[in-house]
Amino acid sequence: MHRELSTAKFFLSGQLRVVLVAPRNPLNIGAAARAMANFGCTRLRVVNPYEVAFREARSAVGAAPLLASAEEFTTVAAAVADCAVVVGTTSVGHRELQHPLRRLENGARLMRQSAGPIALLFGSEKFGLSNQDMSHCHWLMRIPTVDLDRSMNLGQAVAVCLYELARDSRAAVPPEKLRPALAADTEQITAMLVEALQRSGYIQPLTEVSAKTKVRRLVRRLNLTARDAPVVLGMLRQILWKLGGAQQD
Amino acid sequence: MHRELSTAKFFLSGQLRVVLVAPRNPLNIGAAARAMANFGCTRLRVVNPYEVAFREARSAVGAAPLLASAEEFTTVAAAVADCAVVVGTTSVGHRELQHPLRRLENGARLMRQSAGPIALLFGSEKFGLSNQDMSHCHWLMRIPTVDLDRSMNLGQAVAVCLYELARDSRAAVPPEKLRPALAADTEQITAMLVEALQRSGYIQPLTEVSAKTKVRRLVRRLNLTARDAPVVLGMLRQILWKLGGAQQD
Repeated sequence: MHRELSTAKFFLSGQLRVVLVAPRNPLNIGAAARAMANFGCTRLRVVNPYEVAFREARSAVGAAPLLASAEEFTTVAAAVADCAVVVGTTSVGHRELQHPLRRLENGARLMRQSAGPIALLFGSEKFGLSNQDMSHCHWLMRIPTVDLDRSMNLGQAVAVCLYELARDSRAAVPPEKLRPALAADTEQITAMLVEALQRSGYIQPLTEVSAKTKVRRLVRRLNLTARDAPVVLGMLRQILWKLGGAQQD
Repeated sequence: MHRELSTAKFFLSGQLRVVLVAPRNPLNIGAAARAMANFGCTRLRVVNPYEVAFREARSAVGAAPLLASAEEFTTVAAAVADCAVVVGTTSVGHRELQHPLRRLENGARLMRQSAGPIALLFGSEKFGLSNQDMSHCHWLMRIPTVDLDRSMNLGQAVAVCLYELARDSRAAVPPEKLRPALAADTEQITAMLVEALQRSGYIQPLTEVSAKTKVRRLVRRLNLTARDAPVVLGMLRQILWKLGGAQQD
């Protein structure tokens, strides 16, 4: 039976990090952990959980051991810093999305082919991922439900995604891939570009927040490689040096 | 989006009956109903539920309407009487099975091809389907988890099975392509970036030619989209304006 999963097994146990952003229900956190155990995925990360819920989930009878080793973060940026690809999940329906949206089946194939560590983000039960959470993502993935107005339960969404990631037994040999830049480098590039755009007056104080989000998304769409990231950082550093101190008005 | 599911839609809404045998947890009953709503399956049947749990699930806030119309039976035989094919789910592992056992993916394909109504049975949270329950089944189906000793949560198992039944691999749409930027725009971006790097001293006159080539290749590797190109041009224009005239020495 184990043979069925052998291709996907390395990916699920080694490459994938499941990231729950602001989960509020201990049962859902527990259910997500249980689904991870079912499909051989071990790395759980939690961003700003409702503390009582997280404690309760951890201390529940029969809690998956991976809950004990779950890592806690205060920002999405920190939770995905060591990942090369960041994928968000969404039920969509009404919101206008700024990201490429892939159906789960196609997205899962793409994720398995990725060369570096991957973060898969799930939003809170009530609101899903915020636009700011999504701005850290390279692309989004949606489970093809028929009912677009009703989102899936968090634990069930995690189970379905991991099932699909584990499913393909005849996964092809991944094509030669350039190693993508780590999220930490991508974020630093974002920060430096924002700084350069502020100093040059492209970003105005009034629209700063939305502009930062737009720049973050744009930089992710560039799909920078690990080789190019330090080059781009060097360019921006030099441009920033030349631009001088922050613009005051 | 609905088109994605059209092949499986008729099957899920018309042919399939989800049968929960002796469920004990109202949250699981509710979760099963929610997953059914997500994937367009409407007929829920319950055999000998723990009465308190069933009542609680039905009266829960936001309970799926299909819980209200769920049919209750006292025997598996009665619950599957009008079905042509009866399929049981199992986590297997240790029990010796007397039935053909199919992996979910293969089983789902077979189920979709069936001509008459189909019952899909899920056992209780604690014990799964009993041998007697299974004796009503034509064959069994198992979700390919890695952990054979630990069964899946009931609500999650229902979600994964319905996802697989709804997932029509032939209906998968190719991932959407974003229109790439025109070469003229990419080249203008290259020229402006080179200019900015010259003005800020990143590119020195001595290595100008090779530096330009490197920048040109790097910009191409970014695979800019037609939508992003004018944004990047605007950013560079502003940075160039702030950097001022060309560096002379």
